[in-house]
Amino acid sequence: MRADAKRNYDALITAARDVFAAEGADASMEAIARKASVGVGTLYRHFPKRIDLVEAVYRTDVDELVETAERVVADLDPGEAVDAFLTAFLRYARTKRTLLTDIREAFDKHPDFRLQSRERIDEAADLVLSHAQRAGVMRDDISGADLMQLIGPMCTNATLTEDQGERLVAVIVDGLRPNRR
Amino acid sequence: MRADAKRNYDALITAARDVFAAEGADASMEAIARKASVGVGTLYRHFPKRIDLVEAVYRTDVDELVETAERVVADLDPGEAVDAFLTAFLRYARTKRTLLTDIREAFDKHPDFRLQSRERIDEAADLVLSHAQRAGVMRDDISGADLMQLIGPMCTNATLTEDQGERLVAVIVDGLRPNRR
Repeated sequence: MRADAKRNYDALITAARDVFAAEGADASMEAIARKASVGVGTLYRHFPKRIDLVEAVYRTDVDELVETAERVVADLDPGEAVDAFLTAFLRYARTKRTLLTDIREAFDKHPDFRLQSRERIDEAADLVLSHAQRAGVMRDDISGADLMQLIGPMCTNATLTEDQGERLVAVIVDGLRPNRR
Repeated sequence: MRADAKRNYDALITAARDVFAAEGADASMEAIARKASVGVGTLYRHFPKRIDLVEAVYRTDVDELVETAERVVADLDPGEAVDAFLTAFLRYARTKRTLLTDIREAFDKHPDFRLQSRERIDEAADLVLSHAQRAGVMRDDISGADLMQLIGPMCTNATLTEDQGERLVAVIVDGLRPNRR
């Protein structure tokens, strides 16, 4: 991709995330192009179908979550890293909740995409969790996949409110601490 | 309902739960009638459509969960009561997971049924949780509805395994304890 094409592509994804977050899954392609300051023709050249754009947005969200996992493990103390990762997961899940019907459609069309996304997120969770487990600050009978099973369905549930998500992540973080009994 | 009709009705629901659990949501009406030792005609007299039977099974599961909440609050120490209720919830969720597509169909047809079931379960969770909160053995910044948001979507997620469910309920129970920090 040429540099200006790449710039438009990135601007469209950033704009799409903002517009979907503000207007919901029914946001128009025109509104996204406008927000990205590109023509609708340019949008459709990069993303021939709406679902292609949703897929790219979701892929970018997963990329960011994985990068967050790597960053918090490098920068924070191991217990705080788990907390920061789960907070980032809540943020990631907000978009997923908005676009759930479209993302499920993308998953149905590309089962590999579903599987890869899931694996990448499970591995990110494992990275953060096992780092904390080695430091002895989190119980060691739980895997990254377990943690995602605990938080994932809750976070993509349509009835979750933002406050509630934060309260429940705090319960989970406390529950992950070792030597309770 | 006459006594023998009531006996058949109850036998059909018990049989349906067992057969759905063993054979999945696609189990035949004939297999359920056979298991209940009644004729298929009797089954269809009580439950003209398959969805009527699914709805009755689900309603019975909710009844039992509510009764369990009342019983554990009366019989167990407050912390153990939460543990026992969540274990009963895991059992309840197993049927719901098996019949999820059918139950969603019943919910779509009868939004009141969805709402009432949800409210009854939230109230049951509240009963058990507030009992433990008054005894000072559970944190008090979480409501019954929060607890159900934490455990419900996880438990009805298709990928949850039985072992994993038990492990994750243990994390949740630990996370609910007060004075962690």
